[in-house]
Amino acid sequence: MGLKFEVGATAQSGGRRAALHLPHGSVETPVFMPVGTAATVKAVQQETLERIGTDGAGAEIILANTYHLYLRPGHELVRRAGGVHRFMSWRRPMLTDSGGFQVFSLSKLRKVTDDGVEFRSHLDGSKHFFSPEHSMEVQIALGADVMMAFDECVETPATWQRTRDSMALTHAWAARSKAYFEAHRHEVPWTAVPNTSDKSALLDDRTQCLFGIVQGGMYADLRRESAERIVEMGFNGYAIGGLAVGEPREITREMIARTLEILPKDKPRYVMGVGYPDEIEQYARMGVDMMDCVLPTRAARHGLLFRRALPGERQDEGELTDQENTAASGATPSAIRMNIKRVEYAEDQRPIDPACVCPVCQRYTRAYLRHLFVSKEPLAATLNSIHNLAFYLDTMQRVRSSLAE
Amino acid sequence: MGLKFEVGATAQSGGRRAALHLPHGSVETPVFMPVGTAATVKAVQQETLERIGTDGAGAEIILANTYHLYLRPGHELVRRAGGVHRFMSWRRPMLTDSGGFQVFSLSKLRKVTDDGVEFRSHLDGSKHFFSPEHSMEVQIALGADVMMAFDECVETPATWQRTRDSMALTHAWAARSKAYFEAHRHEVPWTAVPNTSDKSALLDDRTQCLFGIVQGGMYADLRRESAERIVEMGFNGYAIGGLAVGEPREITREMIARTLEILPKDKPRYVMGVGYPDEIEQYARMGVDMMDCVLPTRAARHGLLFRRALPGERQDEGELTDQENTAASGATPSAIRMNIKRVEYAEDQRPIDPACVCPVCQRYTRAYLRHLFVSKEPLAATLNSIHNLAFYLDTMQRVRSSLAE
Repeated sequence: MGLKFEVGATAQSGGRRAALHLPHGSVETPVFMPVGTAATVKAVQQETLERIGTDGAGAEIILANTYHLYLRPGHELVRRAGGVHRFMSWRRPMLTDSGGFQVFSLSKLRKVTDDGVEFRSHLDGSKHFFSPEHSMEVQIALGADVMMAFDECVETPATWQRTRDSMALTHAWAARSKAYFEAHRHEVPWTAVPNTSDKSALLDDRTQCLFGIVQGGMYADLRRESAERIVEMGFNGYAIGGLAVGEPREITREMIARTLEILPKDKPRYVMGVGYPDEIEQYARMGVDMMDCVLPTRAARHGLLFRRALPGERQDEGELTDQENTAASGATPSAIRMNIKRVEYAEDQRPIDPACVCPVCQRYTRAYLRHLFVSKEPLAATLNSIHNLAFYLDTMQRVRSSLAE
Repeated sequence: MGLKFEVGATAQSGGRRAALHLPHGSVETPVFMPVGTAATVKAVQQETLERIGTDGAGAEIILANTYHLYLRPGHELVRRAGGVHRFMSWRRPMLTDSGGFQVFSLSKLRKVTDDGVEFRSHLDGSKHFFSPEHSMEVQIALGADVMMAFDECVETPATWQRTRDSMALTHAWAARSKAYFEAHRHEVPWTAVPNTSDKSALLDDRTQCLFGIVQGGMYADLRRESAERIVEMGFNGYAIGGLAVGEPREITREMIARTLEILPKDKPRYVMGVGYPDEIEQYARMGVDMMDCVLPTRAARHGLLFRRALPGERQDEGELTDQENTAASGATPSAIRMNIKRVEYAEDQRPIDPACVCPVCQRYTRAYLRHLFVSKEPLAATLNSIHNLAFYLDTMQRVRSSLAE
């Protein structure tokens, strides 16, 4: 299979350092994966992504969204271009989600049957159908190193019975995803990936790999049942889905903890769609190997910047959704949110974070960044995103270093 | 004075190579100056500007707009930050316009008197007044290496008499601009600029310098009269204003030629607000030393990309304003405009320009750039702008090389 996972030091807390070898290269974990929705991490050049972060190593793996690329430019176009790696000129590992989450959150007029889900495009209202088989077909055309099984994302809050029914559908779809993947994995558009000098060259099979997704909503018994069933089926790695959808952060942590108890320790474990800097650090220390979130880049485009907290500092300036604030409440922050549009920054000649060595903090002042944001200059989104991504990658780098000690 | 101009080889056509030494560094001319309207060349990082172009030398001088910076963030704020160089972290030479052109093209409810012009902000409708003295005060606060005298830009078309009256006002304002500048030049916010290793360190006076502006509309006799009067007053350099405002390109060329005959050969000569790649090449070969234009970056944001023409190629795809098309008509193009949103590029795996070595052409396909543009991704503006700016700087590099032979 197209994946090799080498677990190194494991802490008392369950957190572990590991190396994930994939066809396009190797990834040090725990890792945060920037989201490149439409084959671009919004407002950031690929060249920048390759060297972002204090250690200069850049983002070792990024994510792209199957739903978006399926609708535009279309998976067959991407396949003919040689896959999303070649399409966007990204030479390192990538992961695609299954499309399920966006179908359930962005599209209109969804109709779910056992077979799959019919939906209308949020772009033009056109009608489409995703089944597990079709999600696999699309993801094989996109050609990411890691694909995700097609799952149903239950609405929140949902009753135990509704959650259990949805979970059962997810399990049936996981089995169908795996069956289609096994039969078609050699159709990946980049069979001719050149050998690299790192350990990915040692992989038995330089094709894609497939992760299963554990569901079960906010019910610990269902989470356990789902984890057991998905692990029985056997995947290259395991994701925990359906979290960070509005529940209190304590519940998120609890569901992750219950699920991690079941997941095999020799496979990568991925929590989808989280979170704030404090959260990704916390979950990594619990034993989560991979995480992704639009937060660093989306917050950047709204003028919200992260910086390291000073001792005893508590105040946050972020004006996010209720859901995000709920998720952030109650914890002592290791990161402070700055709202760069505030007038108090108009003549602040300091960098965002005096302790940060990212190219934005090395060169630009808060005053200039405020001016760019207030003036709606496109450079605002770029510089803010670079800083926030560097902050996230540095957070994970710090966690990895402490886990290795 | 804060300027030293060394003229090298001069061709039969009048074109000449020269070096312009300014307090923040030296500039090889003929030069194209990217426009950084609000202290940012839209969508492009300063780091990128410093190394753009085939020779890796980057933009040696950029322009910022006094009108925009006066309104937001305000010239006093910029002064307190140490000038626009420090505010935006640009260490190389800069030029500010006088604010006149934008007052006449962007603001509302203008009232011109001999004293100056009252106008309302295009941002919030607030009332402001620019006189020659106030323009100088603002430009000194911004602290660019090169400032421009405050001039009136006559509407177009205008009668000979109207143009002559406006020109007389411009001359009176030029004298007042110079008088104020002479009395206040030492108020520049960066008197403590560190010495650099290049020839700018040899300047007698490391403060700003001031260029006069020749007006006269589309009347050759008025252009000659204006040039004579402005030269009599004595400035560090001479600009030709009021062109490329809708007139046929042949008239633009004619007005430039008539004016160049009068301007002293030992001072830099600057044509404001031009133009297409063909134009900047043509004017440089006539003896123009400096040019600026929003075209490469504005066109980029509209998906219009420039590439070198193949032999005999004539077709242009650009959909610009009538005025721009008029300006471009009739000449054999050395540059082709590509409209990247066209469906024919959807699966075009070539770079924008196979002969270009800019980082965009070295890495990304037309198919990917079309996808970014059609998807309204912010990276589209960035990559398109980098390519177009590289194209403009390479055009000037080519002209400089051929003038040196």
